[in-house]
Amino acid sequence: MSLSPLDGALYADLLSDAELVARFDDAAQIRAMLEVEAALALAEAKAGVIPDAAAKHIAKVARKLEIDPAALAAGTAKDGIPVPALVEELRRAVGEDSAPYVHWGATSQDIIDTGLVLRLRAALDIQASRLDALIAALADQAEAHRGTVMAARTRAQQATPTTFGLKIAAWLAPLIRHRERLAEIRPRLLVLQFGGASGTLAALGDKGVRVMEALAAELDLAVPPLPWHTQRDGLAELAGWLSMVSASLGKIGGDLVLLAQSEVGEVRAGQAGGSSTMPQKANPVGAETLVALARFNAGLLAAVHQAVPQAQERDGVGWTLEWLTLPQMAVATGAALRNARTLIESLEVDAARMRGNLEAGNGLILAEAASFALAAHMPRPEAQALVKAACAEAAASGRHLMDVLEARTDAPVDWQALRDPAAYLGDADALIDRVLKRAGRN
Amino acid sequence: MSLSPLDGALYADLLSDAELVARFDDAAQIRAMLEVEAALALAEAKAGVIPDAAAKHIAKVARKLEIDPAALAAGTAKDGIPVPALVEELRRAVGEDSAPYVHWGATSQDIIDTGLVLRLRAALDIQASRLDALIAALADQAEAHRGTVMAARTRAQQATPTTFGLKIAAWLAPLIRHRERLAEIRPRLLVLQFGGASGTLAALGDKGVRVMEALAAELDLAVPPLPWHTQRDGLAELAGWLSMVSASLGKIGGDLVLLAQSEVGEVRAGQAGGSSTMPQKANPVGAETLVALARFNAGLLAAVHQAVPQAQERDGVGWTLEWLTLPQMAVATGAALRNARTLIESLEVDAARMRGNLEAGNGLILAEAASFALAAHMPRPEAQALVKAACAEAAASGRHLMDVLEARTDAPVDWQALRDPAAYLGDADALIDRVLKRAGRN
Amino acid sequence: MSLSPLDGALYADLLSDAELVARFDDAAQIRAMLEVEAALALAEAKAGVIPDAAAKHIAKVARKLEIDPAALAAGTAKDGIPVPALVEELRRAVGEDSAPYVHWGATSQDIIDTGLVLRLRAALDIQASRLDALIAALADQAEAHRGTVMAARTRAQQATPTTFGLKIAAWLAPLIRHRERLAEIRPRLLVLQFGGASGTLAALGDKGVRVMEALAAELDLAVPPLPWHTQRDGLAELAGWLSMVSASLGKIGGDLVLLAQSEVGEVRAGQAGGSSTMPQKANPVGAETLVALARFNAGLLAAVHQAVPQAQERDGVGWTLEWLTLPQMAVATGAALRNARTLIESLEVDAARMRGNLEAGNGLILAEAASFALAAHMPRPEAQALVKAACAEAAASGRHLMDVLEARTDAPVDWQALRDPAAYLGDADALIDRVLKRAGRN
Amino acid sequence: MSLSPLDGALYADLLSDAELVARFDDAAQIRAMLEVEAALALAEAKAGVIPDAAAKHIAKVARKLEIDPAALAAGTAKDGIPVPALVEELRRAVGEDSAPYVHWGATSQDIIDTGLVLRLRAALDIQASRLDALIAALADQAEAHRGTVMAARTRAQQATPTTFGLKIAAWLAPLIRHRERLAEIRPRLLVLQFGGASGTLAALGDKGVRVMEALAAELDLAVPPLPWHTQRDGLAELAGWLSMVSASLGKIGGDLVLLAQSEVGEVRAGQAGGSSTMPQKANPVGAETLVALARFNAGLLAAVHQAVPQAQERDGVGWTLEWLTLPQMAVATGAALRNARTLIESLEVDAARMRGNLEAGNGLILAEAASFALAAHMPRPEAQALVKAACAEAAASGRHLMDVLEARTDAPVDWQALRDPAAYLGDADALIDRVLKRAGRN
Repeated sequence: MSLSPLDGALYADLLSDAELVARFDDAAQIRAMLEVEAALALAEAKAGVIPDAAAKHIAKVARKLEIDPAALAAGTAKDGIPVPALVEELRRAVGEDSAPYVHWGATSQDIIDTGLVLRLRAALDIQASRLDALIAALADQAEAHRGTVMAARTRAQQATPTTFGLKIAAWLAPLIRHRERLAEIRPRLLVLQFGGASGTLAALGDKGVRVMEALAAELDLAVPPLPWHTQRDGLAELAGWLSMVSASLGKIGGDLVLLAQSEVGEVRAGQAGGSSTMPQKANPVGAETLVALARFNAGLLAAVHQAVPQAQERDGVGWTLEWLTLPQMAVATGAALRNARTLIESLEVDAARMRGNLEAGNGLILAEAASFALAAHMPRPEAQALVKAACAEAAASGRHLMDVLEARTDAPVDWQALRDPAAYLGDADALIDRVLKRAGRN
Repeated sequence: MSLSPLDGALYADLLSDAELVARFDDAAQIRAMLEVEAALALAEAKAGVIPDAAAKHIAKVARKLEIDPAALAAGTAKDGIPVPALVEELRRAVGEDSAPYVHWGATSQDIIDTGLVLRLRAALDIQASRLDALIAALADQAEAHRGTVMAARTRAQQATPTTFGLKIAAWLAPLIRHRERLAEIRPRLLVLQFGGASGTLAALGDKGVRVMEALAAELDLAVPPLPWHTQRDGLAELAGWLSMVSASLGKIGGDLVLLAQSEVGEVRAGQAGGSSTMPQKANPVGAETLVALARFNAGLLAAVHQAVPQAQERDGVGWTLEWLTLPQMAVATGAALRNARTLIESLEVDAARMRGNLEAGNGLILAEAASFALAAHMPRPEAQALVKAACAEAAASGRHLMDVLEARTDAPVDWQALRDPAAYLGDADALIDRVLKRAGRN
Repeated sequence: MSLSPLDGALYADLLSDAELVARFDDAAQIRAMLEVEAALALAEAKAGVIPDAAAKHIAKVARKLEIDPAALAAGTAKDGIPVPALVEELRRAVGEDSAPYVHWGATSQDIIDTGLVLRLRAALDIQASRLDALIAALADQAEAHRGTVMAARTRAQQATPTTFGLKIAAWLAPLIRHRERLAEIRPRLLVLQFGGASGTLAALGDKGVRVMEALAAELDLAVPPLPWHTQRDGLAELAGWLSMVSASLGKIGGDLVLLAQSEVGEVRAGQAGGSSTMPQKANPVGAETLVALARFNAGLLAAVHQAVPQAQERDGVGWTLEWLTLPQMAVATGAALRNARTLIESLEVDAARMRGNLEAGNGLILAEAASFALAAHMPRPEAQALVKAACAEAAASGRHLMDVLEARTDAPVDWQALRDPAAYLGDADALIDRVLKRAGRN
Repeated sequence: MSLSPLDGALYADLLSDAELVARFDDAAQIRAMLEVEAALALAEAKAGVIPDAAAKHIAKVARKLEIDPAALAAGTAKDGIPVPALVEELRRAVGEDSAPYVHWGATSQDIIDTGLVLRLRAALDIQASRLDALIAALADQAEAHRGTVMAARTRAQQATPTTFGLKIAAWLAPLIRHRERLAEIRPRLLVLQFGGASGTLAALGDKGVRVMEALAAELDLAVPPLPWHTQRDGLAELAGWLSMVSASLGKIGGDLVLLAQSEVGEVRAGQAGGSSTMPQKANPVGAETLVALARFNAGLLAAVHQAVPQAQERDGVGWTLEWLTLPQMAVATGAALRNARTLIESLEVDAARMRGNLEAGNGLILAEAASFALAAHMPRPEAQALVKAACAEAAASGRHLMDVLEARTDAPVDWQALRDPAAYLGDADALIDRVLKRAGRN
């Protein structure tokens, strides 16, 4: 089946990501649960709860066992969870002697949640390395374009000159923060789930905490203060991170679409997208996916947070809602990171067009520059009013703003020098440096 | 791959629905697009745009052609849409003579959107018939339980007596409205998309509207006033309907979970859900899925509405966002309808427990009844105050409210008669009849 | 207080709407509840439940009573609802004799929900008339600009020629559907809430349905099949409508922002927005509000749908959630309708700039036209390939596409005629007419 | 005006919070902006950009100036932002000599965003102290109830015994993490916004970074790497935190509602909520608000994340969307923290009812205990099967599970000892200690 573009073959390379999907699909879920059952047996042997030999046998079998997802479907439909059916399969596979020691004292949620954490750890490793690569690519481009002058645009209007390097540095800055955030989130997220039937570990007598610690060590996960069966803030926080990352990439994508418009034409980013009827088209499909994936994740984020208030000691509703949303978010963010890197590494920048667009406005983009230059010779409100009137005249007449101003005032301003956008870039370079430094450059 | 529980085998019978997934998966999408290309050729022949023989040949080939989704993946990743690659495959399949007439004058979005509409039509047929079956099942149960007295609960507290039949009638009432709504939505949704490159039908010269009408007739779809490439209110309305339906089912599911609590125990609804460690458990997993699917759809609904403001004449962002959300919503609602019917048809009602719970409160649930009975003999605020004080005494002492009241007042009230909850059901029966009548029962 | 821009003075004319806020503020809520209490008394007198004289007195007093919202705050905080405190005030105001008959047999939710319906009716009347006015304004502009040729843009790229009239007609089309939808929604929404304590009308003995009908008649509302205390689909449907309307306006706003970009400059729509530092700026702030309000409503819509699955016979959670969301949505949509009309009526269109942008691309926008012209003389795939190559050459060389094509083929095409964008508009006019007809024009 | 229950008087003490609203209303917004203008003048004097005397005068006037929000409404509606009108008022107030130096080199967004950060800082201080108080209250209750035995409930069914202390410790655990998270978020959020017209600080010549640093010092805010005009991850992260906190409180509220049900009756939490018609009712309105506010925030969270992908150097759409959502979230979380503390501090626990509910199930809740006791004498799957059969018999016959088991097996189990729920609490105490330790108790 392939209901969502995140599953299936058709959109696999556009919107999905095979590497990440492989961490979340049926097979990966079964594999992770078996891994937890294996580790549980070993930990319980270490704590003296079950016999050593049985534990080793269970671990060995569990780590090799292949279970067809379809074989668990009926059990899952009945129980709402795949664990009872999976435990039954595992018991059959380990044979009569070891069977009693399988899944000892655990509850299904211990297995499913810990299995999820294992898969999230793998997914986060992939995402972290993609994030690093994207940061590097952006840092390279920011450096490369620190001298590429272009129009800054505020509220869709040309505002003042800026550089493409500064724009890229602004794209980069939040990604550095996302890297920091991920480091903070990991210890709260990569935590064992283990509480037994309802969180007291009662089936393990007085050895509950000891098994909990041994199991966490076995799986290289942190030990929680207590089971988090219905305390899902860790997952909500992860979802927030995934959505923030994709949102920051959505901003990049949105900017690329705007810069690639026919009438702007300053950047081409992965624009291979052809039309079935218009031979001239080169659509910014990669950039568009970044915005779409961002909006998708923002929607799912709300559902993950709606899933946080889970009832009592286990809640089938909120828990199920997580399954329906969180894996998709992880893949969407992963696909966005991959697409973003491809786009950034293959940027084609038309510096001449940037310059041309900047100069097409008869100098209006330098209105602020003119008003501050005049403010050296008259009160600033007066300067602003003078420039505002000159802007209107320039727009109406098609004459250059500086020519209009020169005619309107005899303030001793160097009007020729003011015509150069590259002379009105303020601290653009210093700001780029500040970001590059945080990104780990020089 | 199987990222989402709506895809894959593991959760197929719990959260997903094979019959509906089959309307939306890669294969169905390709099939629907080929169907549109076939109909387009025939319509254009009818309008004299392309040769009749070519059209018939294209239609015949397109209707039989099997295309492996993976074969279109590279093209889809490049173009953002599968159509150019699909058209190429179709051209190859029809051979050199007819190839030029394939996809004549259409744009990719015409094919994808119309293909989606065809698939939605099939999905809605399934959902409509499930809705009918559920309405019938609820009507049967409302009728069967019109005499089953139980406690109504407002804000989690026992309020007054009611009947289980009236509760079921209340579950049923919105479903009748959803059926009406669906009838209203269909003509706005089941509409051809056909506008050519950017909505003017220019490639068809003066035959655009004629082809549009012929194509709509061929596919048995309505003709839109003009192409709706970036006017997506029809899809947003559908998403709203899907979410409303699943939300109404979520209310049923939520009630069933509450009624099935150990301490309430009035109803068991499909409670086969076993635990991996607690032998006594029978979890209400089916009912829980209804709530989870409702909350999932409500989250996706926001994303679909976020996709409505699409830019200019075609918007890759919003359009992609629809693909990521709408099919999942359709399947979630379909699964919820199926699960709800199973639950309703297999309800096990414990009328004795209902009665027991009603009577466990020392008559407090009849406080309103007592206050209105007293109001015949004293001002109602005074009656209310008297009953309120008696409630406190009854709660503290464990005596029956009517006994307490009898001791506190000599108002000539028939306290014995007031003890019977079945005597304080007001218009429950008439209200059930009103709903059943709207459901088509008489 | 003024926490939200929808409240308060600061943003009142930008994002909010005094006329609509006045339907939803504290005072309006109290007024509507008193109106329901008045009507209830009259209806119950008519049904013989309470004395005629008391009913008339209650109605008269209730309709004039002014209650300071702050006076109900403590009661509301205690009870979760303002009704008990309000009933107490009303009882005090009517005096000892009539006091017992106030609020007879009703539950708080009857009063609050019916009061909300009354306020929604007033709000929908305002919105309906704004929608009509906007439809008229768009129809006028579509008519006025049916000959204004411009570039259609798909996926942010110039696609083919179109007309501004057709673009406006596309903006208009969904609004006509929203008008239809509103007509369908009204009878499901403008419905009395009346069920007594828990929906059985038990306190009214055998007169429940009679009072229900009389009360609905008194308030000119429809009679529901049964109380809808926890069946909230009507409100969810309304929220969907509000969000759809604002989303369609968000699409208009988004297009206006794009058309107003410095590099496009084809339309100015209410662009008074000044900058505190850039004298030349004229920001499209009105258009931006349309997109912001659309995204706001889409987010709230999810919350309203999350509120639908309400527990049992009354649910404080979902009900409260409606109060937090629905009124804001109504005001946001109302403000959007007002802002949209202002924008549309004051559109300044630069037809020369439209033409200029169209022609700036060396004829690339006519690539489809050229390919269909050539397809009369060679197989269409061959024609497409030829045009594609010519596009690349034209883009690289800066020569006009038709010149390049003329040099590359001796197919007998009238290349001069093909240069005229106005000759490649297909059925634009006929499509505009189809929409105008549905809008009620001739 | 008072559109939302978060504004206005009616719901002020139920759903809103005067202390927090006062940080976000019109007056607070104006005050914060004037504070920023004051600090800007001082910082620019320090950097030698404007004269010292003018700066001091501006600062003094700005800090005292009272501006009626309504006086800025027209300007705000025109410009989309209140800053130009506010700057004009401030210029008028400082008089002709200093007027030119007001708002020197800043852009409106610098003032609005920094003003927001100042207000968020104050709001977070309030929330942090409420969070501390709530943590302390929960720690007290967890300690107090570590010996209060009750039924754990998973998926709405009694599962095994637990203690109320452990349940409270589980409520507490995420709040400790939220405190950690807040500490991590602060340095990323409490950051100056300062970039001038489009983020280059060009109007300040070579003194941009120096002014930026001086201004940050003046306001005791961190210096960003570069302006974050369209990099809104800090606000999205805050929104996530606000939603996580309210979601964790929503979980507490939801549990309290369930525990307060008539049929459960184990806890009363602030249950003053009266009914207008049912004298016996005591509704858990405070607990319900926690769930409602959680669901409200989760919905708004999506909107805040939708606002992150902001276009180019300033985006009126996303920015406006933040204003519509973020302050409401801050107040909703603040109100939830206050309500939660009231509820926790006033918990009335009915330990006897807890014990009674635990024992009402004929020992079924000890089925896991029995199966592990038997597993000492037979393979565990066999033990589980035996117990499962015994559970069915106990449920059907009404006999105690241990009696049934004793009759079914001669395994040497101490059946009498197994009847005591307090003997099957596993590591509940140790787990409580782990949480209390993290909460700072020792």
